[in-house]
Amino acid sequence: MEPGSRGAAPGGVSVSAVLPAGGSGERLGGATPKQFCVVQGRPLVSYAVRAMERISWISDIIVVVSPENIETMKTIIEKYGHKRVTVVEGGITRHRSIFNGLKVFAENEFSSHLLQKPEVVIIHDAVRPFVEEDIVSKVVMAAKEHGAAGAIRPLVSTVIASATDGCLDHSLERARYRASEMPQAFLFDIIYEAYQQCTDYDLDYGTECLHLALKYCKTNAKLIEGTADLWKVTYKRDLYAAESIIKDNLSQQVCVITSEKETLAQVGFLLPESLKSQIKVEAISISPSKNDSRLQNIISGQCYNFVCVNDKRCAIQETQEIVDVLEKSNIALLCPVVLISVHLDISENNSFSIGVDDLSTMKKFARETKKKNILVYGLLIQYKDPLLLQETVNSAAALIMALIKDRNPELIGQLLVA
Amino acid sequence: MEPGSRGAAPGGVSVSAVLPAGGSGERLGGATPKQFCVVQGRPLVSYAVRAMERISWISDIIVVVSPENIETMKTIIEKYGHKRVTVVEGGITRHRSIFNGLKVFAENEFSSHLLQKPEVVIIHDAVRPFVEEDIVSKVVMAAKEHGAAGAIRPLVSTVIASATDGCLDHSLERARYRASEMPQAFLFDIIYEAYQQCTDYDLDYGTECLHLALKYCKTNAKLIEGTADLWKVTYKRDLYAAESIIKDNLSQQVCVITSEKETLAQVGFLLPESLKSQIKVEAISISPSKNDSRLQNIISGQCYNFVCVNDKRCAIQETQEIVDVLEKSNIALLCPVVLISVHLDISENNSFSIGVDDLSTMKKFARETKKKNILVYGLLIQYKDPLLLQETVNSAAALIMALIKDRNPELIGQLLVA
Repeated sequence: MEPGSRGAAPGGVSVSAVLPAGGSGERLGGATPKQFCVVQGRPLVSYAVRAMERISWISDIIVVVSPENIETMKTIIEKYGHKRVTVVEGGITRHRSIFNGLKVFAENEFSSHLLQKPEVVIIHDAVRPFVEEDIVSKVVMAAKEHGAAGAIRPLVSTVIASATDGCLDHSLERARYRASEMPQAFLFDIIYEAYQQCTDYDLDYGTECLHLALKYCKTNAKLIEGTADLWKVTYKRDLYAAESIIKDNLSQQVCVITSEKETLAQVGFLLPESLKSQIKVEAISISPSKNDSRLQNIISGQCYNFVCVNDKRCAIQETQEIVDVLEKSNIALLCPVVLISVHLDISENNSFSIGVDDLSTMKKFARETKKKNILVYGLLIQYKDPLLLQETVNSAAALIMALIKDRNPELIGQLLVA
Repeated sequence: MEPGSRGAAPGGVSVSAVLPAGGSGERLGGATPKQFCVVQGRPLVSYAVRAMERISWISDIIVVVSPENIETMKTIIEKYGHKRVTVVEGGITRHRSIFNGLKVFAENEFSSHLLQKPEVVIIHDAVRPFVEEDIVSKVVMAAKEHGAAGAIRPLVSTVIASATDGCLDHSLERARYRASEMPQAFLFDIIYEAYQQCTDYDLDYGTECLHLALKYCKTNAKLIEGTADLWKVTYKRDLYAAESIIKDNLSQQVCVITSEKETLAQVGFLLPESLKSQIKVEAISISPSKNDSRLQNIISGQCYNFVCVNDKRCAIQETQEIVDVLEKSNIALLCPVVLISVHLDISENNSFSIGVDDLSTMKKFARETKKKNILVYGLLIQYKDPLLLQETVNSAAALIMALIKDRNPELIGQLLVA
């Protein structure tokens, strides 16, 4: 479902979300707080916002950031077209920031327009980019029933308590404990009451909302086993992992577009077949300028990879037509789109060569297109010996997969040869 | 220090290591146990073995694997030239495997030749590839003093206890607890005594060696704050992170080799300068066939990236000479080496073109060289307009960095154009 068309919340409750994004990211070891670190061209916080925004039954998304990052956050919302988001100034600790986020629903002074108080409020993290609707829905339903709920995961390492001398005091039996993760959800009145009652010590040193609901409202949160993708980006290695997972997610599907020309028929058939063992393939044979509805549907279905098979050597024009369609669709607004322009060398002689001027034209074109977040690469398939065509096509498919998986912006405009 | 030349252990104790590698890796969600998952062409367990092997004062390294993987493990040791390693058959749980590993030092029946019992034994994990000598040394010294010691890390998430109804019972104050990580170390007699005394329940359900030392030998282990790189590969995202960190480690340094020819002098100067802002650069001007000692020293210093600047278009011969030197050095035995063959286009006319036959030769050469774990890429620098040379060289440096960072085996033999 598209954001904007609101679906029904689980259990028919009204739901909003608060994303604390005020952390300094000191464990990451960089100058940029981790929620603003850029992964595949987009700050991490935008992924978390998008994950909430995609859930149509979440009414408002409150992002709480430190005062110095308010403008940055507003720019991010503008640039990536996020909807239903309100930016709120955070406090000096996590709990104080969440409390500020909640106040938007309850106290006039914290927002120019008081947002409608939800029955259930989700609390998630700006640095957990991969949350799925299913777990959010489960946590919300459990919160409606129990007053509070949170996702948990098995412990990866044994947890130990140290004595004052720096030696082991005791170790916890791993199976009896869980790691508390996000998302969590609460009946708004319960978590707001807890924050109003809690002490300055809680607000300054606490980190666990479930604990506050228990301590101040006697609400034992329901614990929901979450999936492995709920993890929090904490260290630099987590940024690497996030980058790889995002690339993986973008590399699930490719659309192979062939013009309706006889010379291309064989490659237009063999190439999708060869790709099919590695990726989901949609093959269409169209003139892109006709504004084909199949292509539109494929783009709407979140396909981020396109292969355009041409019979001219550097047929910028046909590639440009695909770029125009992609640009109009806004698909590249959130994630880079890969567009591989495949050229067939159907010359009979053996002394075929690539003109450096053609290469320069291609590189210039790719540099312009990159500004639209579309990464264009060239790929030449030699069609000298029909007996070797299958092998060449397989080699082309391997190069296409490498380009799709890597999404390397430095290699745009290069012409690879299969 | 090279493995083989033994240094003194911290505190002058004799030290050996046990690496349990018998896990099934079910949390990873793949068929291959995680310790055998291949990262940059090499199984994860080989990285952990190498991390121990590099520490010259560790006498024996016992790798404990499940019966069905003994041959696989022996092949890995053979293939990557690991030394001082003994493969031992594991039990059905982690504790039983570690116990089997320890028995090699104490009981004749478990090894064809009884290994010398060390004063201190290190227990590490096959799925923690990045341990440094410094932390191993600290843990060993603390074990000598306290009888037991282990690395710890701050908790990433709050730990909670659930009640039988699946609701929150209580949450732990995060600051008071730590995650128990590896490496750990013990006086051999203490940990062996603990394993001999412990119950079947301990052996079947326990996971924590520090706990056994405390319970059966009243030894409170010294806890040592470890670095962030001690983490354990548990989920698929951890494999992604490990891959990125390994690539990062391999991309710290590049050696730019220029032949002693006048035509190359300017590029041979500009290119290293441009690279220097992004990577440590060693620039040498030699004829590689002379078996230059500087090149040998750079290779010995663990440089995994080489750029060879030629004035011929597809000077396979000069590149082949570098390949020969690299092959002789064994540098590519453990990790893939990147070799970028830079060609200068110094033709005056504008109609320069690249022959497809030259490209085929290059690709064939690269495919052969890949079998030696050397990844060869071609890069053309156009030298048409001296005024644009700096810009072209910067573009070449960006492409070189992209090739080094990606180390993509699918793109070998391609000719990129700067």
